[in-house]
Amino acid sequence: MQTAPRSALPNEPLSLLPLGGLGKIGMNAMLIGTRGRFVMVDCGVGFLPPTVVGADKMLPDLGFIAAHRDRIEAVLITHGHEDHIGALPWVLPALDPATPVFASRFTTELIRHRLNEHGLWRADRMHLFSPAARFAVGPFEAQALRVTHSIPDCASIALRSEAGTILHTADWKIDDEPMDGEHFDRAGFEALGKDGVDLMLSDSTNVLAPGRTRSETEVVRQLERRVAAWPGRVIVTMFSSNLHRVRGLGQIAKATGRRLVICGRSIWNHLEAAQRNGTLPVEPQLLVDIEAARDLPRAQQLVLTTGSQGEPRSALNRAAHGDHDHLRLDKSDLVLHSARIIPGNEGDVHEMWNNLASREVTLVADRAIHASGHAQRDELEELLRLVKPRSFVPVHGETTFLHAHAALAHSLQIPARILHNGDRLDLEGRPARTPLSHARVTDLPLVTHYSDGPSTGDEEAMRLKERKKIAWNGVVVVAAAVERAPDGSARAREVSIEARALFLGPDDAHLKDMREVAARAITACPPRTPWSEISEAVRASVRAAARRATDKRPEVIVVLHEGRPT
Amino acid sequence: MQTAPRSALPNEPLSLLPLGGLGKIGMNAMLIGTRGRFVMVDCGVGFLPPTVVGADKMLPDLGFIAAHRDRIEAVLITHGHEDHIGALPWVLPALDPATPVFASRFTTELIRHRLNEHGLWRADRMHLFSPAARFAVGPFEAQALRVTHSIPDCASIALRSEAGTILHTADWKIDDEPMDGEHFDRAGFEALGKDGVDLMLSDSTNVLAPGRTRSETEVVRQLERRVAAWPGRVIVTMFSSNLHRVRGLGQIAKATGRRLVICGRSIWNHLEAAQRNGTLPVEPQLLVDIEAARDLPRAQQLVLTTGSQGEPRSALNRAAHGDHDHLRLDKSDLVLHSARIIPGNEGDVHEMWNNLASREVTLVADRAIHASGHAQRDELEELLRLVKPRSFVPVHGETTFLHAHAALAHSLQIPARILHNGDRLDLEGRPARTPLSHARVTDLPLVTHYSDGPSTGDEEAMRLKERKKIAWNGVVVVAAAVERAPDGSARAREVSIEARALFLGPDDAHLKDMREVAARAITACPPRTPWSEISEAVRASVRAAARRATDKRPEVIVVLHEGRPT
Repeated sequence: MQTAPRSALPNEPLSLLPLGGLGKIGMNAMLIGTRGRFVMVDCGVGFLPPTVVGADKMLPDLGFIAAHRDRIEAVLITHGHEDHIGALPWVLPALDPATPVFASRFTTELIRHRLNEHGLWRADRMHLFSPAARFAVGPFEAQALRVTHSIPDCASIALRSEAGTILHTADWKIDDEPMDGEHFDRAGFEALGKDGVDLMLSDSTNVLAPGRTRSETEVVRQLERRVAAWPGRVIVTMFSSNLHRVRGLGQIAKATGRRLVICGRSIWNHLEAAQRNGTLPVEPQLLVDIEAARDLPRAQQLVLTTGSQGEPRSALNRAAHGDHDHLRLDKSDLVLHSARIIPGNEGDVHEMWNNLASREVTLVADRAIHASGHAQRDELEELLRLVKPRSFVPVHGETTFLHAHAALAHSLQIPARILHNGDRLDLEGRPARTPLSHARVTDLPLVTHYSDGPSTGDEEAMRLKERKKIAWNGVVVVAAAVERAPDGSARAREVSIEARALFLGPDDAHLKDMREVAARAITACPPRTPWSEISEAVRASVRAAARRATDKRPEVIVVLHEGRPT
Repeated sequence: MQTAPRSALPNEPLSLLPLGGLGKIGMNAMLIGTRGRFVMVDCGVGFLPPTVVGADKMLPDLGFIAAHRDRIEAVLITHGHEDHIGALPWVLPALDPATPVFASRFTTELIRHRLNEHGLWRADRMHLFSPAARFAVGPFEAQALRVTHSIPDCASIALRSEAGTILHTADWKIDDEPMDGEHFDRAGFEALGKDGVDLMLSDSTNVLAPGRTRSETEVVRQLERRVAAWPGRVIVTMFSSNLHRVRGLGQIAKATGRRLVICGRSIWNHLEAAQRNGTLPVEPQLLVDIEAARDLPRAQQLVLTTGSQGEPRSALNRAAHGDHDHLRLDKSDLVLHSARIIPGNEGDVHEMWNNLASREVTLVADRAIHASGHAQRDELEELLRLVKPRSFVPVHGETTFLHAHAALAHSLQIPARILHNGDRLDLEGRPARTPLSHARVTDLPLVTHYSDGPSTGDEEAMRLKERKKIAWNGVVVVAAAVERAPDGSARAREVSIEARALFLGPDDAHLKDMREVAARAITACPPRTPWSEISEAVRASVRAAARRATDKRPEVIVVLHEGRPT
């Protein structure tokens, strides 16, 4: 594994190094530094498309982080979504054990849960911040600014230093009717802008969507209309972390004479985090677990369940398969799909919908019953106008989104620059002596890491390409007892062959053919051919036979041993 | 491989047996019969999601078809899309060599191309039909009815018999401004309805989309507006088979002083089929291949390219990667993405868009520059009202769509029944003595086939599950020379180990551990343990070691041989 040299985090006035989050949604982790002292803003995992075999998440370059641990003085977390906190169990062990982690209170509860799973929770390294707080973090004076998003207790972070001020919005939208009454801090952003922001980073996820996002309150109104009109049981599936919407569902349950029935471990985890935080969004007497709701009349049930992405083992997907002990569906049920489908999951979700249709469930999946947590175009423009930064780098988004967001900034006369993961941007700081378009960008060779259960490594260590290759091309194991005649010539005495993941033809004809080909290859070797060359001859001939029969190039493993003459 | 018994195609007055196309988009193939004599309407492949490893298409049950060849008297093809003709190279060899194939003229040209690739083209078994033609096919009098769709020369098929009339619409939309002037035959459908349709089957693909489809002519207007306004080269990507839109691009090229530059083999294939058919949709002097367009000024190029689904080897995807010899992109290019993204392909398409953005290409992918070929809700309702069938079975669609289409029919007081692939519906025929809701449905155990290059077989033969399993869990090959002491006890003399698709830990620590575990397992066997049991002990211990280290259960292949005492 190659690691960028130590000087990769230099002593410039201001530097920015995205370890993830740019060019591809997820794995958000940004190093921001001044004069060689850095902080990491967010520490998330990236999600892999279902076509990747052998890994379940992406992690920022752990080798790079470990090599620069003495320059990374703190980790700052903006909110509790997995793509912002999920890499902590791997990144914290790579950092100095004393490196502090800063987060808001509810976010800290989610971090506690995640770290406990890995036996890594240590309360003493955690530092809470409140909305609008100012606090010292590494070389910066940090200021949190309350933003609205699809999870509670979110903040943007401004980092002030002698060399200038950087604002990292992280994920946000402007919800003017927030379910929890915590408003987007327009005044704070305006004041910050007046103070002067040298560089702003902002969420590009929804830049291609015109207009503004719907408020959570509006979504809850739409949900309530549908729940109130349905005589039977109603089942809502959504992202577990959106406690704003859970709050709304509690209100709907109460207004419609129902209990809020919880189905799925992940929802309980988020409710428990809220309870420890003192912000449980639902009256406790309304809550009941699906297992305990058995005797509750269906018309008194508003079920909240996981499975909005059709995840194979999620509660709703198992119920759609008729495979859930406590959630049995029929035509008296209404399912409200209150979430967007993350690109790549369409196949799983449509399959689940088909299975729901087979059970004659009524399914509603229209856009009115969901709202994005990410600002759309008019909101993005509003914030750029409010803050008026001297320069701008779009973050959080596919490359197409970053280009569109940069174009939006340009249209407002704000200089913008597009970075990719591993592009270190060095700025002269305040007052900007170098225009952003001329600032130096250094492309560092970062290595994405992957995790799969207890295993973590780069693409090579995790064998990601090899997995695909053998899945498509198969594996053949040839074991042969070879007899050497006195003149040194070889004769195959006994050849056994096994194959996996390979089409073998009718009655295993291709397999039998490969075995004969292997035997002939041994016998065809000239006298005194070294064992390694016999092995290679067998491999090559078996591969060629497989290719003729199936157009595949299997991995062929040859085991030879010298047999005793009979 | 299990095959349904011969009586699976019985002597009922009217029978319907979907071999594919219901519950999942694609693989359209419907058997329709009267008194034991059947015809097959369409013979398509199904497309597999990119998560499936080891197969590239799905085929209807070839064993069932072969077993019932004497009852399948003809194949009728409604139009030339792959999901309607693509299975012919496998199905025709399963049928009697004399079984005729009926198709329209342009469709026949596409079938010729497909069968030629497999060396299976035989002009003598092909029978052409024209729009509105009546012709005998097996036990039926068939009538073709012109419909509009996203490929030329499409027909619905009515099949008349003494027992009743069945109408199979296949794929259709109502395009009131067809680019080729071939109008949807409303009068024909109305007349057929007045004659009496006992059972209608209709395309459910877009039943969830309200309103009506856009006309191809409107799409071409939208494309022209964008091409005319762009000073540089314009690149359009779309499905190659939509020659209506290709016709429009030819007109746009002419009107804007450009040549129509063709990039991608599949587009030439469709143009060649049209040329043989005498319906080349573009003036030949406007056409030029990308390779020959090198010296043509970019502003005079309207490039038509494959790759609308981000297919890895398609022209546009390679160009986006900077990997196409003749199509090199830069910021003077406008790319018009004139196609929907098929669910499952979002990841590939977004990746391609990211790469296009990196090249600073301007990308337009809005809905106005594409139109679906499948009727939306108001069109579906119009046709049901026009034909007024006595009963209805929705076809072509996911299960959710079939339920919605049946509900639409019910709302018009038309009895509807939902079938799945393999559900044979038997009707009493005309006059309907049994209501559709009481008609007998027999669920036949059909086996989906898969194709991968030259290999074809069911899920088991193609090793689809085994491929996924070894890709995730890996393969370990243990080869050991075992020495037997005079008392029969075994000792591992030499153990070699190889692994594929498995995380091996830092410095291959897990691999070394597995080798030691294997050696100990051999030595731990009691004296005179049979070879097979030693082998099993090695396998079990290595699997357990792999599981401890990686939480995986690899496939372990053990090769033992008796070593000579040293």
